[in-house]
This record gives sequence, C-alpha cells and structure tokens, in this order.
Amino acid sequence: MNAIPFALIGAGVIGRVHARNIASRADAVLRWVVDTDAARGSALATAYGARFGVSVEEMLADPAVRVVVIGSSTAAHEAHVLASIAAGKAILCEKPISDSLDGARRCLDAARAAGAVAAVGFNRRFDVHHRAVHDRVRAGEIGTVESMHFVSRSAAAPSPAASHRSGGMLRDKGTHHYDLACWIAGVAPVEVSATGGCLFEPGYAEYGDVDTAALTLRFETGALATFSFSRRTAYGCDEMFDVFGAGGLLVSERQREHGVCVYRGTQLHADGIHAGWYERFAPTYVAELDALIAAIRGDRAASPGLDDGLRAQAIAEAAVESLANGRPVAIRDVWSAR
Amino acid sequence: MNAIPFALIGAGVIGRVHARNIASRADAVLRWVVDTDAARGSALATAYGARFGVSVEEMLADPAVRVVVIGSSTAAHEAHVLASIAAGKAILCEKPISDSLDGARRCLDAARAAGAVAAVGFNRRFDVHHRAVHDRVRAGEIGTVESMHFVSRSAAAPSPAASHRSGGMLRDKGTHHYDLACWIAGVAPVEVSATGGCLFEPGYAEYGDVDTAALTLRFETGALATFSFSRRTAYGCDEMFDVFGAGGLLVSERQREHGVCVYRGTQLHADGIHAGWYERFAPTYVAELDALIAAIRGDRAASPGLDDGLRAQAIAEAAVESLANGRPVAIRDVWSAR
Amino acid sequence: MNAIPFALIGAGVIGRVHARNIASRADAVLRWVVDTDAARGSALATAYGARFGVSVEEMLADPAVRVVVIGSSTAAHEAHVLASIAAGKAILCEKPISDSLDGARRCLDAARAAGAVAAVGFNRRFDVHHRAVHDRVRAGEIGTVESMHFVSRSAAAPSPAASHRSGGMLRDKGTHHYDLACWIAGVAPVEVSATGGCLFEPGYAEYGDVDTAALTLRFETGALATFSFSRRTAYGCDEMFDVFGAGGLLVSERQREHGVCVYRGTQLHADGIHAGWYERFAPTYVAELDALIAAIRGDRAASPGLDDGLRAQAIAEAAVESLANGRPVAIRDVWSAR
Amino acid sequence: MNAIPFALIGAGVIGRVHARNIASRADAVLRWVVDTDAARGSALATAYGARFGVSVEEMLADPAVRVVVIGSSTAAHEAHVLASIAAGKAILCEKPISDSLDGARRCLDAARAAGAVAAVGFNRRFDVHHRAVHDRVRAGEIGTVESMHFVSRSAAAPSPAASHRSGGMLRDKGTHHYDLACWIAGVAPVEVSATGGCLFEPGYAEYGDVDTAALTLRFETGALATFSFSRRTAYGCDEMFDVFGAGGLLVSERQREHGVCVYRGTQLHADGIHAGWYERFAPTYVAELDALIAAIRGDRAASPGLDDGLRAQAIAEAAVESLANGRPVAIRDVWSAR
Repeated sequence: MNAIPFALIGAGVIGRVHARNIASRADAVLRWVVDTDAARGSALATAYGARFGVSVEEMLADPAVRVVVIGSSTAAHEAHVLASIAAGKAILCEKPISDSLDGARRCLDAARAAGAVAAVGFNRRFDVHHRAVHDRVRAGEIGTVESMHFVSRSAAAPSPAASHRSGGMLRDKGTHHYDLACWIAGVAPVEVSATGGCLFEPGYAEYGDVDTAALTLRFETGALATFSFSRRTAYGCDEMFDVFGAGGLLVSERQREHGVCVYRGTQLHADGIHAGWYERFAPTYVAELDALIAAIRGDRAASPGLDDGLRAQAIAEAAVESLANGRPVAIRDVWSAR
Repeated sequence: MNAIPFALIGAGVIGRVHARNIASRADAVLRWVVDTDAARGSALATAYGARFGVSVEEMLADPAVRVVVIGSSTAAHEAHVLASIAAGKAILCEKPISDSLDGARRCLDAARAAGAVAAVGFNRRFDVHHRAVHDRVRAGEIGTVESMHFVSRSAAAPSPAASHRSGGMLRDKGTHHYDLACWIAGVAPVEVSATGGCLFEPGYAEYGDVDTAALTLRFETGALATFSFSRRTAYGCDEMFDVFGAGGLLVSERQREHGVCVYRGTQLHADGIHAGWYERFAPTYVAELDALIAAIRGDRAASPGLDDGLRAQAIAEAAVESLANGRPVAIRDVWSAR
Repeated sequence: MNAIPFALIGAGVIGRVHARNIASRADAVLRWVVDTDAARGSALATAYGARFGVSVEEMLADPAVRVVVIGSSTAAHEAHVLASIAAGKAILCEKPISDSLDGARRCLDAARAAGAVAAVGFNRRFDVHHRAVHDRVRAGEIGTVESMHFVSRSAAAPSPAASHRSGGMLRDKGTHHYDLACWIAGVAPVEVSATGGCLFEPGYAEYGDVDTAALTLRFETGALATFSFSRRTAYGCDEMFDVFGAGGLLVSERQREHGVCVYRGTQLHADGIHAGWYERFAPTYVAELDALIAAIRGDRAASPGLDDGLRAQAIAEAAVESLANGRPVAIRDVWSAR
Repeated sequence: MNAIPFALIGAGVIGRVHARNIASRADAVLRWVVDTDAARGSALATAYGARFGVSVEEMLADPAVRVVVIGSSTAAHEAHVLASIAAGKAILCEKPISDSLDGARRCLDAARAAGAVAAVGFNRRFDVHHRAVHDRVRAGEIGTVESMHFVSRSAAAPSPAASHRSGGMLRDKGTHHYDLACWIAGVAPVEVSATGGCLFEPGYAEYGDVDTAALTLRFETGALATFSFSRRTAYGCDEMFDVFGAGGLLVSERQREHGVCVYRGTQLHADGIHAGWYERFAPTYVAELDALIAAIRGDRAASPGLDDGLRAQAIAEAAVESLANGRPVAIRDVWSAR
C-alpha cells in the first residue's frame, strides 16, 4: 500500500493536529507544510520531515501531492479551496468553507464540476458515540424524529477578538451542531430563532457577539431542535445531545474521561468530562483522515462534504440575523440550489 | 397531636390522590368530600369515612374544617378559593388558580388580605431531587445561573378536547416547569418565545394547541431557559432538567424505577423511567401535605403560594401568544403588581 | 377495615422504627409497648398512645392483641417467640431467632405446630431493588445462577462489645446476606469458607470477631457466592450485589441518595449513597409490615419465615467455625430437618 | 527519531496484534517474524514488509534487531527468553514466562544478570481506567487498602484442551488479575484459597480445570481480595474491580462500548460492554509498546517486568493446589527470592 502524499496549509493549532495524525500513519505521508508564518511553518515541517514553503502555488505544482488539508485562516479558505481543486487535488477544508455564503457556494460548484473529493472538517460526525446515535436514528430505531436538544459548552472562552475572527459563537461553534442536527434529522431546516447575551464577558458585545445562547431550529417536518451554547464552563468540554422520536429517546451522553469513580464522604465522585475539545475529540481527527483516505482510494465523494458545510453556514447566517433582530428567521436553501 | 380536619372539593383523579394521602396520615383526617357528581363523590367519601356533599357552602359552614383542598374544574377554582378564604379556611389549590390572570390575581389579593395559608399545587417542587438542585443552586454551589434546560414529556397524551379544557399544553404542562425555572433562577422572567406543532396528533390543532413544543424563557439577568415538551413518549414519564452556572452544571437526572440492571447480549438493560406521572411523583403529593400542615401549624405562608401560581400563569399566557404570532412576547408582571 | 392491634416487645432502635411505622398506618394500631427498661419503654408508649408494661405475660393475656413484634435482646427472643405463639399471636421476630440453632429450631417447630403466622425480620428482602433482582432471577431472566457477589459495609462500626452481643459480624451482618443469597439461588447451601481480620479495630479480636471479611458460599448446584463485609466505610451504608447466570448478569446497584449530580472542576460529583442503614432501608420496614398484615388477613404463612431465619443462622454458624479453623465448613441442614 | 527494529516470535492471535501495532508506528519497524508454521508466519511477515524465518537463532543473529516480542507457545517461552537475553535484545514476553516456576525464575535471573529490558505482557496494567485506580490508590486517595473484588469473565470459552494448554483458568486468566491485585495492594500476597467447578462445560473437569471459580487472596497486611471468574458470558467481555480502603471505595467500572443509550418501552437500553477481549483492551497493547519503547530509549527496567510475572505465577500455582485439595495454600515467595 503506497502512502498517500499530503500537503497541509496552515500550521496553527488544528494544522498541528492534522500534521501529527498524517505523520503517524503508515498509509499517508506529510510531504508539505505551507504557512505564511515561516517560523511556525518550518518548525512543524521539520518535526515531521516534510518540506516547507510559504507559497501555496509551489506546493500545488508538486504533482506528487494528492491531498490538501486546508487549515488556513477563514478569509483564505475560498482561494485555497479553488486553487487546490483547480490543481486536481483532493481537499479537506476546515469550516467554514468561506467567509460568505456566496464564496462557499463557489467552492461547492467548483468541486462538483471537477468531481473532486472535497471534505469539510465537521469532526463531530466522526465521534463514535454521536455517529452511533445517527446510525440508529436513520435505521428507524426511535421512529420519526420530533425534537432534539444539543448542548455545546467550550472549556475555555476565546478572546472577544478571536471569537469575532472565527465568525462569532453562532457561526464558529454553531455550525458543528447545526450540521449534526441536519445530519440526524435527515430533512431540511427551515427556520431558526436565536437569543443570547453576554453573561460573563461583556467584551463580546462590542462585536455583536454573545457568550451564552439558546436557539430553536425548525425542520420542514415540524421537528424542533434546541441548542444551548456557552463559551466556557467550570468543568471541561461539555457536549451531549438527545434525539426524541415517536418510538423512543436516543442520547449521546456526556463522555467521562475515565470509567473510574470513588465513593468518599457523602458523594460519588466520578471522573469528569474531558479537559478540552482536543482531549474529547482527538480520535475524531484520526477517523476523519480514515474517511478521507477511503474516499480518495474509492474515488467517491467525501462525507461530510462542501454541501454539508454550506447548509450549516446558511443556518448560522440566519441565526446571527435572528439574534440581532429578535425574531425567527427563514433559512435560505443555498446548499442544494441550482 | 390533634388530627387536622380536611375537606376536599373534587373527586377526580387528583382528588382521589389527595384523599388517599390525607386519610393515611395520623395528623390529618378527611372530613368532607364535595363534588357535583354525587356518584363518584359519595363513593370516595365512603371509602375514607368522610361526609359527602354537593354544596361547597354547606361544607364551608362546618367550623371544624380547617383546610380545603381544591381539585375542582379550573373554571370553578376562583369561586372555591374566594369562598374558602372568606370562610377562614387554609387552602391548597390545584393549578391554575383561575382561568384568567385577573381572576388569579383576585385570589392572591384575597389571600393576602386575609393572611390565609394559601398554597398552589406545584408538586414538582416537592420532588426530592428537583428540590436538592434548587437548594444547591440557591446556596451558590454553581454560581450565577446562566442557562437551564427542562424536559417534560408525558407518558400518555390527553385527548385534544381534554388538553383544551386544561388550557392546552403550554399552560397545563408548562406552568409546572415555568415555576421550577423561576424558583431556581430566583429572578424575574421577562420574555418568552414558543414554537411547536402537531407532530403526531393533528386533532390538537383544532384548538390551537400543539403536541410538541420548544420554548425559550429569558430572565431579567439575561439567564436563559429552554423547554422541550411533548404530550407522549414511548418510554414513560420523562422529566429532567439541568442548570448551568458560572461555577458548574447541576442536573436533576431522569429517575429510574429501580436501581437494577441486566447485562445481556450487546446491551446493558437498566430499569427504565416511571410508567406515568403518578408513579414518578407520588411522594411529592405526600410532601406537599407535609408542607401545608407545617404551614398551618406554624401560622405562616405556604410555599409555593398563589403568587407563584400567578407568575407561572403569566408566563403561560405570554407563551400561548408567542406560539400564535411567531414572535417573542414580554411577560406581564402581575404576580408582584400592586 | 379494622385496625389490627399490635404489641411491641423492645423499645430500642429497631423497636422505635416499628412503633413509628405501626402508628402511622390506618390499618394497624400500636396497643402495647413492653420493655424491661421502664423509662424508654413508657416514653415510646406515650408517644404513640399505647399502653406500657414490663410484663410480656400481661400483654399476651390481652385478647385484643393479634400481632407481637419481637425486638428484644437476642437472648430473650426464643422465650418471647414461644410465649407469643402459645398465646395464639402472629409474630414478627427480629433475627436471629435465638442464640442457638437448637433454640431457633424449637421456635420453628412451635410455629409449624400452631400454624402461626411467623415472620423473621429480614428486611433486605423488601428492598424494591433487591426484590426485583430476585423476581427476575426466579423468572429465569438470566438462566441458571452460576455466581453471585454481595457487598455489605456498614456506615459506622459498632463497638467490639456490641458486635459481640449481636453474635459478631459473620452472624449479625452476615445472616441478612446469606438469606438473600439463598433466596435468590433457590437451592440449598452446602459449604462456606470464611477469612477475615481486624484491619482497623483490634478490639474485635478479643472476642474472636473481625471487622473485615471475605466469604465463599457453595450451593448444591455448584453455584458460588462471595461476600465482602466491612464494619465501616468512609462513605455511608454500602450494599449491592450481582448475580451472574448462564444468560446474563443482574445487578442490584448501589442506591444513591438523590438523582442529582454536579459537574465541577475535573469530576462529576453525584449524590452519594445513604448515610446509614436506616436512610437506606427505611421503606423496607414499612413493606415488611405490609407483608405481615397481608399474611395475617390472608391466614397464610409469612415470608421470610422462621425457616429462612434458621437457614441463615446455620450458614452463620458454619462461617464462624471456618473463620476460626481456616478451612471450609459444611453447613448443617437444620432448617428443613424433621 | 530512528525507528526501533522489532522481531516477533509467534504469528498467532496475539502475535498478529503486536505486528499490527508495531507496523503502524513511526518509531518502530517490524523487521522479523519468526514462526514454526511457515504459512502463517510468512503471510504475516509479507503483510507488514518484514522478513520471515523459522529459526530464532537466525533472527537473533541480526544485529539490527533491538527488541524481541515473544508470543510463541508457553512451552517455548523460556528458551526464547534466555536466547534473546543472551543475544543482548530487549524482550516483551507474553505470560506466563515459563511453564514452571523454576523456569520463570531462571528467566528473571538471566534478565537481572544481563541488565536487560525485560517486560511481561500484563496488558491490563495499561488500561487507562485500571491504571487510574492504581495511581489513585498508591497516591493514598482512599487510605489503606482493606479489600478488593475482581470480576473477570471472558466473552467466549476456550475449548477444554485449549484451556489446559494455557495452564487452565486459574493460571491463564488468573495471573492477569493476581498481578493487578498485587500491583494495587503494593504489599506481598501470602495465602490463596480457591473453589470452583464446571457449571456449563463438563469437559474442563477431565483436565482438572474449571469454568467458574471464586478465590480469596490474603496479603501480609491482612487485606483481602476476592476474585470471581468465568470462562464465558452471554454479554461480552466482563471485567471490573473495586478497591475498598479506610478512606473510600475506588471502582474501575465496566466499560461500555459507546456512551449511547436509548429509552424505549419500560427500560433504558445502554450500549453494552465490549464483544471480546480485543475490543475491550486493544488500546492496552499500543500503550504496552509505548512503555517498552520508553524503557528501551531510557535504558531502564520495563514494568511490569519478569518479577511481576513470576509473582503472579506463584499465586496461580498455589491457587491450583488450593482448588485441588480444598484448603487455603500459602504462596511461595519466589519472585524476590535470592
């Protein structure tokens, strides 16, 4: 089995996760690291024996590269996606695909025209627990989906400026969970209503952003999803959801770090949830690569794909509008549009 | 210790629960059962050795009666509350206090003027698990409350007509949980947003009612509560909630019927939740009487009181309006109004 | 329904539990309290409006008394059982029935000859969780029983002298659990092996007693039960067991005080187990009376009965011998003997 | 970082696990596979690009080989260990080290004399949950250890002949758990008592073996461990244990395959335990290699080492004797003997 040559654009936090995972596999090899910051980029390249460059074009001109993992800043995503597809590469793009719905739509159109393997980094879908719930819902185990509730609370809050650069909480955090909701419901989302505020960090308000939010999403079937988001907790990375159907309730439970507990005094102290997103979701990045490599070897579309990314972005845009104007907002169906 | 003489108005389902609990106590005696339906009323009276009457006035004229438990139809509540208070009795009134906010307000004013012990039947507050969460939140264990999520799904759906008679799901089921949310938050609710639909029983729509709903309630501090309601489940009476605060997350978990589990095949089969509301909440009706009797013996106000009932009704009215017009609705502060 | 008149012999800890439960029922009335200690006995009698006496004979001569609850010291049990049966009363005797196997056998023979309703106070059988496991095992849910493990650890240790008066840990604590094991297995126990020591209280050793023990009990089918006992914990009253069968594993789980948990810091802090035996098992004493009264009204044998008490005592005697001589000891079948 | 060259002796089930794990690492390379069965051995070597040979000597003569993983038949272990150590290699030997205590002792002596890195395959120690309990006990979190209970029940039973070849259940399965018990207790084991029988497979009896067993192990401090073993379950690979100390109870809980549950009907159906030992313990084999490679790079002794293997074997021999003669048996301290 030949190792598939990968290139990585972006040597930031998520880029380093991908580099480590690619380098540790027998069926993949990290051939390039590209970053505008030469110091961090070359350090990462050296650590894994890859070439380093500041030029995306130079890397894309290397015919050996088969896959480009795009972990650059959001503003640069669209250009990197379009160039990589034009160069005939497969891609894995971190979300959001673009900083505009139109830009994201252009990426999707390009990938479809080229027949490219084009995945979006919704790693939550690769969590074995979340996926098991999805599979069981889709297999009909609890009948028609009637309502869902998603909890997502980060361990540590980003700075207001960083949150703003990532699009704000309703986009940055939200898209993962809108995607999960749509993926599980299996039907189209039609309207979203968002409310929220700054309960612990007034600085978010300067950007029109919030640290705490509650959303309601309605699907074409009338099914309802509620979302409870926070930018920080006092107890680690909190993520769980339940799906209520006509035939039962399925829960993707909070995951504890270890299956250990101690009885002492008047309480049972069990191991808590994971300290952060990486501890909680590290295996999903490995599984994401498994799926991408399988798609490349199988010459078939990757999943979740750019259309899934676009759908979640469309919900995020409507949610942001709802938060601002205090009313439910209809969701534009840009992901399946002609 | 002298047994306190009780009278019961209403020999329906909830009336029978109260009769059984009063009769089984050493510190209370069921002296009267009043019902417009002589057959069911006299049967209940006979079973517990109480007198039966169709006339509330006759019963209220009995000077021995110290407490009146009002389990009549909602339309009759206000008259029964006012007459009982006028007769100098303590009361426990099932919710809602009245079929109008103004009527409920009149009851509260009368009770305050008379200094009467006047309790409302929010039995959920007496659930030991719910109460433990309340007490720990109020003791500051998780800091400032930032968000809450309440799940309430009945085991079996009422008929559309019965649901309508009880005020519809957002009033009938909702008031219990709006009250819990306010009780735990400890601050005033200011706005509610409701959405929902008929996902399994189209008949509710004829009354403007729904079988599935999601609500968002905002408090004056910016704290948010979401509610997920359904009129039926395939797995029993489903009720739980969580409270997220700056310092941690408190959960009043789903209660299993027994602490028994079996490992067999590929699953762990634990005892499920309770078959219905009575199985789940039977002890709360006993505790509700404990609290009422303590209030009577202590000559102090009962809790939850008519003001709590009025506050939850005000939220319910706003929720019904929001469901109808698709927008968030401000909550009228009638419960503390002059 | 006429209230059944009860008499209580013994106004100690367990006697007070029985008195309170009898007095709070509509279908029972506490008519007598008998105790050699006039101070505590008459105080208890007064609290519940019962007569007080120091003479068992005087009480037994009262034809109104139908049931005698025997909570006197172990040394007095046999005499009180025999006299009560001779007087035509139903009995509920705390375990052990007698301080000798022969004495216990005489009680059983007398009860059988008289056709008396004669129950023994194995309250654990009335725990709803333990009972559910029993019922499901006996219904064949996990097939043939192959092994069991019982944990019993008291919240607080008795003094060495008090433990000795109660027969020592292998008798006092053990009989509850030997009885559960036999009840669930449904076959005869044949051999027991015990080991143990004083790990935290050397004072037990002066009486040949231990504070920590591990036992293995073998049944005629080859099924095995292990027991892990301790006289104290740092975390409440610890009791659970599992039953492994050919078709699965059934567990009667540790019961938490409330279904509440808090996520804070790096741990999930759930409500712990109960603070002591009474908090954990209070409902079993009520259910024990339910069963006794049902037996009396139904004119049928009570269960668990004196034969069950005798069987558990026989295991205890063998366990004590095994602990002393370091070898497995065969169990005398005195409970079904002619 | 140079990849460390490994050789593997034995291409059976466990050998294939090791081969896969070595081959998937960036810091290790599988250089040799040796097996007396050329068909399976060469197939495994080819799959991972390693050399194949039938001669251990030829492989040991390759100076590039730094580590030998010994997964041959038990009867061959001692020869392979001694030859590998003589050739200056580091070793990881599957348990038991030898088919005799004396042979195992010779291996330990050789490794000590050579200062070799010599690990034994007690993979359970690398389970993150088990290890967390160990670390917390050793850190004093629950004070002095007083009793422990270990459950180990395999998903599927080996044939009587296969069980016999592996030394029988008390050796094959038992050594893993005796080692855990000693590791956690941190003190010397002094006596063991075993009982058991053939409850579902009479064929084991022909070899003096059992399918179900209960054991009690006593430590020099008086601490007690009980063990409940079975050769098969109807519900997967069942392994858990608890440790009771003066200050609390620590539990390494049964691990569920996923953190997913469904409420349906009258039960809560959670994901069950793992289907077999490999599904349950796959990560431990990876962690075992991590520890071995760290030991090699650090030039320090591996842990668990041959002395741990020898100690567990000594307990197993005593347990087998106890099972046969029906009495507790003292354990020979061969692991620390001169």
